[in-house]
Amino acid sequence: MRLLDQTIASIKPTLNEDAFHAAKERLANQAKPAGSLGVMEDIAARLAAIKGAIDVKLSNKRIVTCAGDHGVTEEGVSLFPSEVTPQMVYNFARNGASVNVIAKHAGAFVKAADIGVNFDFEPDLPIFHKKVRYGTANFTREPAMSRKEAILSIEAGIDIVNELEAEARVDILGTGDMGIGNTTPSSAIIAAFSGIAVEKLTGRGTGIDDRMLENKIAVIKKGLSLHRPDPSDPIDVLSKVGGLEIGALAGLVLGAAARGIPVVCDGLISTAGALIACELCPAAKNYLFAGHKSVEIGHAFMHERLGLEPLIDLKFRLGEGTGAAVCMELLDLATRILADIKTFEEVGIRNAQ
Amino acid sequence: MRLLDQTIASIKPTLNEDAFHAAKERLANQAKPAGSLGVMEDIAARLAAIKGAIDVKLSNKRIVTCAGDHGVTEEGVSLFPSEVTPQMVYNFARNGASVNVIAKHAGAFVKAADIGVNFDFEPDLPIFHKKVRYGTANFTREPAMSRKEAILSIEAGIDIVNELEAEARVDILGTGDMGIGNTTPSSAIIAAFSGIAVEKLTGRGTGIDDRMLENKIAVIKKGLSLHRPDPSDPIDVLSKVGGLEIGALAGLVLGAAARGIPVVCDGLISTAGALIACELCPAAKNYLFAGHKSVEIGHAFMHERLGLEPLIDLKFRLGEGTGAAVCMELLDLATRILADIKTFEEVGIRNAQ
Repeated sequence: MRLLDQTIASIKPTLNEDAFHAAKERLANQAKPAGSLGVMEDIAARLAAIKGAIDVKLSNKRIVTCAGDHGVTEEGVSLFPSEVTPQMVYNFARNGASVNVIAKHAGAFVKAADIGVNFDFEPDLPIFHKKVRYGTANFTREPAMSRKEAILSIEAGIDIVNELEAEARVDILGTGDMGIGNTTPSSAIIAAFSGIAVEKLTGRGTGIDDRMLENKIAVIKKGLSLHRPDPSDPIDVLSKVGGLEIGALAGLVLGAAARGIPVVCDGLISTAGALIACELCPAAKNYLFAGHKSVEIGHAFMHERLGLEPLIDLKFRLGEGTGAAVCMELLDLATRILADIKTFEEVGIRNAQ
Repeated sequence: MRLLDQTIASIKPTLNEDAFHAAKERLANQAKPAGSLGVMEDIAARLAAIKGAIDVKLSNKRIVTCAGDHGVTEEGVSLFPSEVTPQMVYNFARNGASVNVIAKHAGAFVKAADIGVNFDFEPDLPIFHKKVRYGTANFTREPAMSRKEAILSIEAGIDIVNELEAEARVDILGTGDMGIGNTTPSSAIIAAFSGIAVEKLTGRGTGIDDRMLENKIAVIKKGLSLHRPDPSDPIDVLSKVGGLEIGALAGLVLGAAARGIPVVCDGLISTAGALIACELCPAAKNYLFAGHKSVEIGHAFMHERLGLEPLIDLKFRLGEGTGAAVCMELLDLATRILADIKTFEEVGIRNAQ
């Protein structure tokens, strides 16, 4: 049995119901109107159910930013050249990028991962070295990658979780991406699964104009009509119109779910990966938190398909794990709300309700 | 010239435009797609304009939770009895309440203020002792307070800012409220200013049912038609249908604006106070950040009138400063985004844009 199948097989179908109910009861008895901390109470209860405890400590917070290049950039779908992908990987490794700054604020540690960058990094660069191939093929001409490479990219993500856990128990994992051109495969993936018109799912990525957007839509349509990915076969979708870092992002979700680690999902590309994961194993959703709502219009359709409500809407359209990092602070706060706010009984106030 | 007038006179009409433009320029040159951190970039630029600097440090974060009682609770507008107001003040002073837990997470210090609680606190209880009177009158029979008391309640808030600043420079101030029954005067205030139908502005507070909601709407209508508060005279509105803690909340905003301190506003009641402040002095808006969007339906109308977009929507309906405390973390993050994310030039990446 290969790693991917083993991992999926080890994801439990349900969470700890006793902890969930104990959390709900404590929240209802805290000295505040019932349910008055809204979404934070729901998150706190689900985290309790994941961890099997009321007083959850999210101490070791990790963000993995998966990077890959995209052959489809030949078709002029992005404002930035592919050379920016490795440059940004260096920027992550040197702690200078947006996600590093936001993660630091959240008390989280970021590490980038090369899954498919078209560049040879020095072996001692502090990133996860998991290259499957030097970027995908241009999916307007041939499949983005082979079926085998798609599986290897997912397993790269699973490997990363296993390596992190070998170092120290991971309390919460955030996902992030870097890859010039990668909103194009992400929109293609949600189009393939949902059958929704490509026009409705395709956004401006790093900020392309109307003419480039029209071209991007045509490029995605061409890829989909050429390869006809099978929506009932997520590996087929990933291999034909996906990305190597998107495969790894799916693997992060599966690996974390298998080990009972909650995952905060970032923007469009990370959510495309989460979608691949949850189409492969719906029980993985139990561990998944939708971080933020991206400006990218395809994101909402992904959340709808996953049945998740994003936590915040700060009009981000960056990726890297920036939205996940912001939301990690909120998940951390949710654990404190559940454990530390005192009950009416504890503070000696009569509960009117 | 009395304190209120002095304070209003000292609020500058504009912010530091040089710092604003320098912030905008740095944000545009950072190694990320232009504008890709959305709302956080807008916040960062405004904070820079308030502070006159790019590298803003929000070290001394303070939250003041203003408490008062409401005669209108006699009319059965809340699920909780008025006795809960002083009990919750003790809970704040003992660090056991929701706002204490959330503020601790945000690195903020909370202090409650007695502006109009119907209870005598021990003089050594660590709160601001600023009682103007023992709760408001029932506004379905007589004005909530006199015009003089309304001014004193606002000046109590200004005094608190001045006392905090005498201790140490306040980098950011969060507002919060406690007062059983206080969504009723808050909805009355926005109704008085906007002329919008009371039904559209009145929510369920701590969780009242349909019958109680109908009664609450009738109570507000009765108060408004009995006293006919003059919407062009905010002190008149505050005195006739307002609350003592709401006056102090207005004073906090005015006092902070006069000293150039940014203010994060909490839910319905805090925003009612902010509205009084900004109707008295529109320039105070420059210093005001709308924290969260409350479940209370009147809140959106207040934000519309203030021209502010709330930062998050976590379905809170608690008050105390809980929403302000969550948002303080985000404002703090915004300062780091502006100062710490490196520019394309700093990291040696060619900017495509």
